[in-house]
Amino acid sequence: MKRSLGCCYYPEHWPEALWAEDAARMAEAGLSWVRIGEFSWSRLEPRPGELDWDWLDRVIDILGQAGLKIILGTPTATPPRWILDKWPDMLALDPQGRPRTFGSRRHYCFSHPGYRAESARITRLMAERYGSNPHIQAWQTDNEYGCHDTTLSYSAAACRAFRDWLAEKYGTITTLNVAWGNVFWSMDYGRFDQIDLPNLTVTEPNPSHLLDFRRFSSDQVVAFNRLQVEILRQHSDAPLVHNYMARITDFDHYRVGADLDIASWDSYPLGFLEDRSDACDDWKRRFARQGDPDFQAFHHDLYRAVGRERWWVMEQQPGPVNWAPYNPAPLPGMVRLWSWEAFAHGAEAVCYFRWRQAPFAQEQMHAGLLRPDSVEALGLTEAKDVATEIEALPEVGTAQARVALVFDYESAWAWQIQPQGASFDYFRLVFDHYRALRKLGLSIDILPPNTADLSTYRLVLIPGLMTFRQPLRLALQRFEGAVLAGPRSGSKTDNFAITLGDSVMPGLGVKVVYVESLRPGAELPLAQGGSLSYWFEALDTAEPVLEQTVDGEVARVGNERRQYLAGWPDQSALLRILEELCQLQGIVCKHLPEGVRIRDTTTHRFIFNYSAERIEFDDIDLAPAGVVWKTR
Amino acid sequence: MKRSLGCCYYPEHWPEALWAEDAARMAEAGLSWVRIGEFSWSRLEPRPGELDWDWLDRVIDILGQAGLKIILGTPTATPPRWILDKWPDMLALDPQGRPRTFGSRRHYCFSHPGYRAESARITRLMAERYGSNPHIQAWQTDNEYGCHDTTLSYSAAACRAFRDWLAEKYGTITTLNVAWGNVFWSMDYGRFDQIDLPNLTVTEPNPSHLLDFRRFSSDQVVAFNRLQVEILRQHSDAPLVHNYMARITDFDHYRVGADLDIASWDSYPLGFLEDRSDACDDWKRRFARQGDPDFQAFHHDLYRAVGRERWWVMEQQPGPVNWAPYNPAPLPGMVRLWSWEAFAHGAEAVCYFRWRQAPFAQEQMHAGLLRPDSVEALGLTEAKDVATEIEALPEVGTAQARVALVFDYESAWAWQIQPQGASFDYFRLVFDHYRALRKLGLSIDILPPNTADLSTYRLVLIPGLMTFRQPLRLALQRFEGAVLAGPRSGSKTDNFAITLGDSVMPGLGVKVVYVESLRPGAELPLAQGGSLSYWFEALDTAEPVLEQTVDGEVARVGNERRQYLAGWPDQSALLRILEELCQLQGIVCKHLPEGVRIRDTTTHRFIFNYSAERIEFDDIDLAPAGVVWKTR
Amino acid sequence: MKRSLGCCYYPEHWPEALWAEDAARMAEAGLSWVRIGEFSWSRLEPRPGELDWDWLDRVIDILGQAGLKIILGTPTATPPRWILDKWPDMLALDPQGRPRTFGSRRHYCFSHPGYRAESARITRLMAERYGSNPHIQAWQTDNEYGCHDTTLSYSAAACRAFRDWLAEKYGTITTLNVAWGNVFWSMDYGRFDQIDLPNLTVTEPNPSHLLDFRRFSSDQVVAFNRLQVEILRQHSDAPLVHNYMARITDFDHYRVGADLDIASWDSYPLGFLEDRSDACDDWKRRFARQGDPDFQAFHHDLYRAVGRERWWVMEQQPGPVNWAPYNPAPLPGMVRLWSWEAFAHGAEAVCYFRWRQAPFAQEQMHAGLLRPDSVEALGLTEAKDVATEIEALPEVGTAQARVALVFDYESAWAWQIQPQGASFDYFRLVFDHYRALRKLGLSIDILPPNTADLSTYRLVLIPGLMTFRQPLRLALQRFEGAVLAGPRSGSKTDNFAITLGDSVMPGLGVKVVYVESLRPGAELPLAQGGSLSYWFEALDTAEPVLEQTVDGEVARVGNERRQYLAGWPDQSALLRILEELCQLQGIVCKHLPEGVRIRDTTTHRFIFNYSAERIEFDDIDLAPAGVVWKTR
Repeated sequence: MKRSLGCCYYPEHWPEALWAEDAARMAEAGLSWVRIGEFSWSRLEPRPGELDWDWLDRVIDILGQAGLKIILGTPTATPPRWILDKWPDMLALDPQGRPRTFGSRRHYCFSHPGYRAESARITRLMAERYGSNPHIQAWQTDNEYGCHDTTLSYSAAACRAFRDWLAEKYGTITTLNVAWGNVFWSMDYGRFDQIDLPNLTVTEPNPSHLLDFRRFSSDQVVAFNRLQVEILRQHSDAPLVHNYMARITDFDHYRVGADLDIASWDSYPLGFLEDRSDACDDWKRRFARQGDPDFQAFHHDLYRAVGRERWWVMEQQPGPVNWAPYNPAPLPGMVRLWSWEAFAHGAEAVCYFRWRQAPFAQEQMHAGLLRPDSVEALGLTEAKDVATEIEALPEVGTAQARVALVFDYESAWAWQIQPQGASFDYFRLVFDHYRALRKLGLSIDILPPNTADLSTYRLVLIPGLMTFRQPLRLALQRFEGAVLAGPRSGSKTDNFAITLGDSVMPGLGVKVVYVESLRPGAELPLAQGGSLSYWFEALDTAEPVLEQTVDGEVARVGNERRQYLAGWPDQSALLRILEELCQLQGIVCKHLPEGVRIRDTTTHRFIFNYSAERIEFDDIDLAPAGVVWKTR
Repeated sequence: MKRSLGCCYYPEHWPEALWAEDAARMAEAGLSWVRIGEFSWSRLEPRPGELDWDWLDRVIDILGQAGLKIILGTPTATPPRWILDKWPDMLALDPQGRPRTFGSRRHYCFSHPGYRAESARITRLMAERYGSNPHIQAWQTDNEYGCHDTTLSYSAAACRAFRDWLAEKYGTITTLNVAWGNVFWSMDYGRFDQIDLPNLTVTEPNPSHLLDFRRFSSDQVVAFNRLQVEILRQHSDAPLVHNYMARITDFDHYRVGADLDIASWDSYPLGFLEDRSDACDDWKRRFARQGDPDFQAFHHDLYRAVGRERWWVMEQQPGPVNWAPYNPAPLPGMVRLWSWEAFAHGAEAVCYFRWRQAPFAQEQMHAGLLRPDSVEALGLTEAKDVATEIEALPEVGTAQARVALVFDYESAWAWQIQPQGASFDYFRLVFDHYRALRKLGLSIDILPPNTADLSTYRLVLIPGLMTFRQPLRLALQRFEGAVLAGPRSGSKTDNFAITLGDSVMPGLGVKVVYVESLRPGAELPLAQGGSLSYWFEALDTAEPVLEQTVDGEVARVGNERRQYLAGWPDQSALLRILEELCQLQGIVCKHLPEGVRIRDTTTHRFIFNYSAERIEFDDIDLAPAGVVWKTR
Repeated sequence: MKRSLGCCYYPEHWPEALWAEDAARMAEAGLSWVRIGEFSWSRLEPRPGELDWDWLDRVIDILGQAGLKIILGTPTATPPRWILDKWPDMLALDPQGRPRTFGSRRHYCFSHPGYRAESARITRLMAERYGSNPHIQAWQTDNEYGCHDTTLSYSAAACRAFRDWLAEKYGTITTLNVAWGNVFWSMDYGRFDQIDLPNLTVTEPNPSHLLDFRRFSSDQVVAFNRLQVEILRQHSDAPLVHNYMARITDFDHYRVGADLDIASWDSYPLGFLEDRSDACDDWKRRFARQGDPDFQAFHHDLYRAVGRERWWVMEQQPGPVNWAPYNPAPLPGMVRLWSWEAFAHGAEAVCYFRWRQAPFAQEQMHAGLLRPDSVEALGLTEAKDVATEIEALPEVGTAQARVALVFDYESAWAWQIQPQGASFDYFRLVFDHYRALRKLGLSIDILPPNTADLSTYRLVLIPGLMTFRQPLRLALQRFEGAVLAGPRSGSKTDNFAITLGDSVMPGLGVKVVYVESLRPGAELPLAQGGSLSYWFEALDTAEPVLEQTVDGEVARVGNERRQYLAGWPDQSALLRILEELCQLQGIVCKHLPEGVRIRDTTTHRFIFNYSAERIEFDDIDLAPAGVVWKTR
């Protein structure tokens, strides 16, 4: 497949006189796609019911005439001020009970019926007008669901909807009381309308209460999005896409993605390194201008799974941003590297955010491909290089990994609700596995927890999966490759109770006697090297012991094909364990130098240098921020 | 006295079919006591006025028939949801004005008259039904008063009650204005109903206002408890007990204890080390699986004082818990060690929490004596060992310490209100003295601030006592042993004003000219070794100077029998000073190795090894977590 | 000019019998001034409309008869409780929407019309009664505006006033929408009454919205103060003064000061070192008993500018205070040193806070010149020394600095709103420049941002000035000395948009391409020594490059007379750059030993030793806390 580039554009921010020139420059730079409209509601409908499509008609025409394909966004992430006059209670409340007010964006509660109706109305109006416009080649629903902690709302609307959701799920209040274990601390309810949202309780609420609230909240995002999807599909055949964010686990992206055609995400490597990474300060300092070498790759693979192989980068950082604690500029070459890392992972398109830096409002310090004075910024220069390289490059194949890693949103909720130790974080646990695989030179597929077919893999990793559900259980029964699961995998029932009776891991006989969360400095060294940190589980098992701690505690059990980890291995131990499993499965590993990463597709091997130094690797000379590809 | 063991049991959590087997296993394990009922209100009264005693009748019968003595808890720490329908304003408000809602426990304001009536009603119903039941051998009122910061409430009910309390105390508003010094900053009130609770003020409120609010809040706990006590005493002769927590100083435990027969506390050594200890990270790491060597002992002695020599451990940690920042498992042997440390301090009974780990709800990750699948956990094995040892051990005498340490709740409030330096904490100050005494191999009595007889002691320590009240002043006049007081002792009047005119310490002539709070790194080295940290007081005194800082500031004054400390000595200085005082009083000290602690009773010397290493001490070989006793 | 001393006195706190003796002791100690009344409203008007002037009449008479000149404070910082009965909505709300309640001080919203009327009423009554009293030689308005974060209020009154302010400023809502760039994120408003205060938004509000709120809030302080000023001027010819605080930038002190005759500030060197300094822990430890060597001097020069050369210290720390995280005692000699530092900077008077330490209420642990028991404290002894020295000292001239530093409140707001990096702080940036100049032995003038005449200077520093406004632009055009500006100077328009088109610095051609905020450890070393920390700007300029980073980035451009800094130099680089500029301008620099500082006036050179060690400097022997002056 030929890959393509694009950008995000806000014609409403600029004088109409600039539009044609902007369009021409985009096309000339080799960009194919342009996303517009997603924050423009106050200009499309300045007053209730008073629609102004003219300017949008004109800009679509200008862009389309310049040969650009348009992604049109529904503008529901930024309801205009007058909608609040109509629905004053449409705001989300935060966990402290405070309204999250107008004045920025995403100021709505997903559960508010009035705002859902507004969202449907504006979507329908846009779909009717542009659904068959040939320049509209894709639709984006809303913008960055869940960003700014907006999935969870503690509003009255959310409370009412949650009660209905529970009544629907449980049928009778007794069923709910039993499922949650409400006999504990006399928490029994008599009626569904006695159940409040689980905030502001004296001490921690029932974890089952919390988990159902998280499931409900995720469902509300799915439902909100689906309403737009159904309307858009009535009027347009163009593919539907949403732009997700990094490390947002508050809703189940697989379920939103199932209603859409393409997944996309907004990739800000430098901002995310400062803002959302668990890496230590030294790592952040070393990669400050390059971004974490594995963080983007992880999300590329995650959203590839969410999009069922169809995915994009909808917003690619082109220079310094404005929102992280520290905002350095990318090392020259990194905008190109990030683009190629996306393509190597199968991205159909990479769109840079934004075409021109706005000199006003919240994001005025966020770089664009152009400076605010329209001068070309370094981001555009590198984008042009990528465009040229795309032209020159023969078809880039899609990858087929031999290693897979299960990532599950519900498990993220479960362990946020019940970390049991200050350091336990599900994303971090999965990401640690991902990073170790990348350091071994491997390409990885990420799988949802309901995966029913594992037959194309040789090795599947399932760390921290709260519950093994039926499709995965069946797939595992049939799976001939190796599986490494644990810690915490299979430890809970669907109702968030401890798994009793059965083994925590399908295919092995393992029970967890107790768990320990470990303070920094209390790591448990392993006899074979490395150590367990954060977490240890004492097992009751008759399975062969594969390794032990220096103190003789069982750390890993099982056999060549099924293994269970009784703790959280550090990188050194993970590398050793994963390499061992790969060797058993005939997967070739390669210990990469710091900062070097590889991505294989059916047609090419891509080699990336995330370090700021020149590196000699495998007879290849990698410049700082260098990218090299070889046909396979 | 022969010591006994027990456990906490929640029959309502388990199928009735398990009850008899559980009872038999408890008895067989050597447990004598079983506590039940304290969280069961929603099963005793599922709907308003609809009582269901049958299941409780049956379980009491089963347990009693198995030979177990029952502690029956009033269930008022967990009011059912329907009570909130009746009294929607019964919730406490937090200092930010937010309601502390239903969904966990302790969701009530101590000042709410409606909830007090509910509490009295359910207590009366239980007392009437079980007051003369022969299996009920003790009653527990409510559960863990003050846990989860529930003593202080900022509700409307609390505000009304506080105004009444003030009117009762002061009579006229002018008296209050004078007592508080409200002329300062024009804070004068015209009427009692103008006085609000002291939260949300622009900057700090008047400390006298705060102190009276703290006294009032403590009184509300006393009154709430007393209401249950009065009802229970009408129907039962069994002793009354409450289970206090560690390092909760928000109410005056001596005053609650005065209404009860036995004090008890809930001892979670590993959780408390992570959660409530001032120890440094290295100390926490070294004792992570053993708990602080002095923290439990301190509370044993404190609650011995609160219970006027009758005290228990009502909940003893049997394995990992779920609520601390990190939750490791106890070193094998520690459950036994903790039990014996309690007995050595005079505990009549030690009850383990809980019989069986619940697989559901908030505490599902909290170990029990049994695993959730009913398999014996390590805690039970060690409990059985203790039961066997109790059988074998002749009578354990009660101790008579020669050293006493005054602990005062009001002083804790005073210095929380006015720390004057970020590091000043009353509990820590007293605990530093306690730890130093333990390191010297001594057994200690803790005394309330109104102690009227010191004649059995040779040395009394009175650090940080806000005000010397009359009984103690008189006792000190008569006391022939040595007294060490300060810093801050005697520095305030009853109205929380600076002590003027008189000496801050009875028996010496000492005035404080000014105080200094010291930042870390600004300690004042003492000429004789060690240093003053956190706190220094410049004195105006004609008393002999006993020691000075290296810079020549007076650090300690007085004579062999009365000494005043002008600062907060570090452990090194405290050990030196206390050893000197002990020598003068003929008390034999012994510098113990790290982790080794001693407790003497009239009959035995107990030696404990809190370290994870084997230690040779006094020709005794102490295994890790080892306990040794010798008759005296 | 002969300098004078004074103190702050609260006769209402003490028995009337003490007043005469206190007055006599003040006079005898050499104090000329006594400030009274500013917190006494509840005693002047105990009940609504019921005025009690008698006691104040008597105390004024007693103090005046003793030869003391009185500063009479309007009591509006502490409205009595009954005023809240009248105006329950007069309280400010904090950013979380919580009322800031009665019980301490400053419990009013500047925008509340009812409270403004009360403030005018009590001011008028006082002015009518004492306006022509010969003992009243100055008036103080209110007390410490803005202290305890009280400038910004989120009340309904503030919201209404803000909308009016915006309507007045912008005329039409479209003008506001354009000025703020509200097209971004569909933030357009249809009416002024749709605009809320910028708190509780989902993510950051529009920076222009925030900046206008900050301007409005500052204007409300100016208006509140002006109302008192207008009334006082109708009845009194005595000079009007307000006592500002340190490092409070929430309102424009120049604008408040423009309505008054004298500026003053409350100088607490030890409290501020702990509470408001960016210095590292080691610095805080070394100067814990002396205060930062530059912090007071900076504020002296700042308030000299605010007072247009007439300024005082209204409250001088005389011993330990009660409100900082740590509260040590001053090194003996420091009270004298602080007093002389103020005089050397041109203070007309230094008043110590307070005459006698109060034994009750919030400030009971705050030292006075007398102990609570009326014994002389060290502060009084040193004050007497200063009084004697003043008598002996010939006239102290006013200074004329050759170096000026622009300080702008609006820039402080701008960079708080948009730090762009966690470490960026405007005060710190300016203070870094000030400290470097002090280390070079220089005396400095601070200038407001609308300064129209620079002709008396040789060097003007303008770091971080958001916008160059017309008067300063014109003054710079005419200025023949050297100017050093940047980083961030000139980077924004009046509407808080990025400066487009023009150069950011008058007299040079410099555009900023992008900026970088740098994490700790990511400093950029400079080829000539030192490094850039926190901040770097990539420039687009044809000006000569004056220095570069080691990596070859442009760090400073311009010529001998106009230079622009493309980053935030550390102290080492700043010292080098400033010394170079001084040399070019013929200003003699002198690298001072650590802790030694110099202040030159027309008549004397003052040399201060802030260190705790004896220092030999320039053939002068400086004791710890020593002060030496030489005629010039």
